[in-house]
Amino acid sequence: MAKQLGKQTSRLSRPPRVESCAACVGKKEGAGPLGSLFDDVHTDDTLGEKNWEKAESALFSGAVNRCLEKAALTPDDVRFLLGGDLLNQLAASCFACRDLGIPFLGLFGACSTMAESLAVGSLLLDGGNADRLVCAASSHFCTAERQFRFPLELGTQRPPSAQWTVTGAGAVILGRDGDGPYLRCGTVGTVVDKGIKDANNMGAAMAPAAYETLRAHFDDMALAPEDYDLIVTGDLGLLGSQIVRELFEKDGVRLGERYNDCGVMIFDTKKQDVHCGGSGCGCSASVLCGLLLGQMQRRELRRLLFCGTGALLSPLSTQQGESIPAVCHAVSICTERE
Amino acid sequence: MAKQLGKQTSRLSRPPRVESCAACVGKKEGAGPLGSLFDDVHTDDTLGEKNWEKAESALFSGAVNRCLEKAALTPDDVRFLLGGDLLNQLAASCFACRDLGIPFLGLFGACSTMAESLAVGSLLLDGGNADRLVCAASSHFCTAERQFRFPLELGTQRPPSAQWTVTGAGAVILGRDGDGPYLRCGTVGTVVDKGIKDANNMGAAMAPAAYETLRAHFDDMALAPEDYDLIVTGDLGLLGSQIVRELFEKDGVRLGERYNDCGVMIFDTKKQDVHCGGSGCGCSASVLCGLLLGQMQRRELRRLLFCGTGALLSPLSTQQGESIPAVCHAVSICTERE
Repeated sequence: MAKQLGKQTSRLSRPPRVESCAACVGKKEGAGPLGSLFDDVHTDDTLGEKNWEKAESALFSGAVNRCLEKAALTPDDVRFLLGGDLLNQLAASCFACRDLGIPFLGLFGACSTMAESLAVGSLLLDGGNADRLVCAASSHFCTAERQFRFPLELGTQRPPSAQWTVTGAGAVILGRDGDGPYLRCGTVGTVVDKGIKDANNMGAAMAPAAYETLRAHFDDMALAPEDYDLIVTGDLGLLGSQIVRELFEKDGVRLGERYNDCGVMIFDTKKQDVHCGGSGCGCSASVLCGLLLGQMQRRELRRLLFCGTGALLSPLSTQQGESIPAVCHAVSICTERE
Repeated sequence: MAKQLGKQTSRLSRPPRVESCAACVGKKEGAGPLGSLFDDVHTDDTLGEKNWEKAESALFSGAVNRCLEKAALTPDDVRFLLGGDLLNQLAASCFACRDLGIPFLGLFGACSTMAESLAVGSLLLDGGNADRLVCAASSHFCTAERQFRFPLELGTQRPPSAQWTVTGAGAVILGRDGDGPYLRCGTVGTVVDKGIKDANNMGAAMAPAAYETLRAHFDDMALAPEDYDLIVTGDLGLLGSQIVRELFEKDGVRLGERYNDCGVMIFDTKKQDVHCGGSGCGCSASVLCGLLLGQMQRRELRRLLFCGTGALLSPLSTQQGESIPAVCHAVSICTERE
């Protein structure tokens, strides 16, 4: 049974382990600095499907199936699938789940979805309400671009503060077996809105939510940033992550090199023409499953704080002149049980 | 710790109780057969807001705040808010959560959202991962109509199989206190798609999912329909609920009068020009919170199986010629602990 710490954090008493993970990405992500670490790099971003939405759905299923395969498990071995994506009505994950046959709990936290699914999933496992479950999230540049911004064919120019939606999906199996890292605790965020209205500057809109959840996490757990080898947000990009650093500096806390952002890590922001970096549910999901969990498996990284950040805007709310609500959920993952 | 029964059902060992509930609806719902049972009936469906989306958001907050007020609780007394709505990017609930300040876990299960939130919420409470949480869902005729179908101003004709999206929101506080009914178990559904492509016949698309989850529930729990005083789906409407009856009849099971549907119950389908009945996340949520939980509190109803049904289509998937995936989550609510 988890111990409730403060208002937002639950410390797990029977922390589940990562039994398996997989990340499947598109061509541009494959050409980035983490390219060689992903399980599948699709050179054709359509994945052979007849529209982008079906391609994203195939990416989602692909990550879940690859994750099951790596653990030599079948869908029948898994109690729940918790996940989601950015598409209206979670179209990518809902359509993927038609074929997977795993009891499905759809979650929406925009780009924080992977962290949300890990937070909820680890609580369900800790409470004994499942033996094994899969958490997954996806995004696709082409589905997001046409849903949230403009038709791809327009070739619209992007401002320097914009981020590039990652074509990618990540899946994690949580359970009790194996020698994978433990999920130690989760901090569930409140919705924070500091009045940013520029839908091309989501890093700035999400940074205050990341700051508040991180603060709550450190306070609730009586920890400091130094207690982690790495704190990653996903996905604030160059601008948003700089704002998080500055918000902490006002408190006299220097995050330094132990802080990074999945949106900054997945692309070469100098060479890949992605402006402020990557974004999308699939960004933090594929960096976690492609890079970070592997580093933990090899004990190159021992204590990770994985913070999913979501901008909860809709194209309609932007048209209506609303500011951008944001949320951040943090999950602490450690190689030792502690 | 819940006992896992079969592939889909969890029987709770420390079943949480309903501490409070509230339902807030619009004018048409107030004029229906359940009108006098709702906590708030808004005679102006704009709720004084400048657009329909803000009105739905106000409806969502209104139900949560009313539910807290009835239990003499504040947002600080509640660990999580689990909920969602039908709008793209869950705009109604995300924007409502800006002001509520409760750690927010966004869920999407289309019209099954209320049941999904009760299923997840009761598992979190059973596992000791929270002391008290609030589950909520909303829908609004005007936001749904313009998002999923046509601009309201067009006055488009609706086919006889169509359902009328309920303007309403329901909220339930689950915890350990008081003398409210217990959540005994939950059955989480898989995504079922039998190939129905008519977005104006969602009852037919969802009926097979309802049938499969009900079957799984009865098999996993070794129960029969007779073990419940009432089995409600939400929201299959007249046509979909008839299909569920027929699917059970093929198995030699007559559901009879112990089966009903929230979409049929909320409106007078003969007089209110709603064709097959109500739909929307707010339909089953407000029937549960306005009618059913009150009947349980008064012991007029002792054993209820509340089955949320969601059609997981998006307007884009329909335009792309896809069939309609559907899901159903069932939650068993009983006045005795058993």
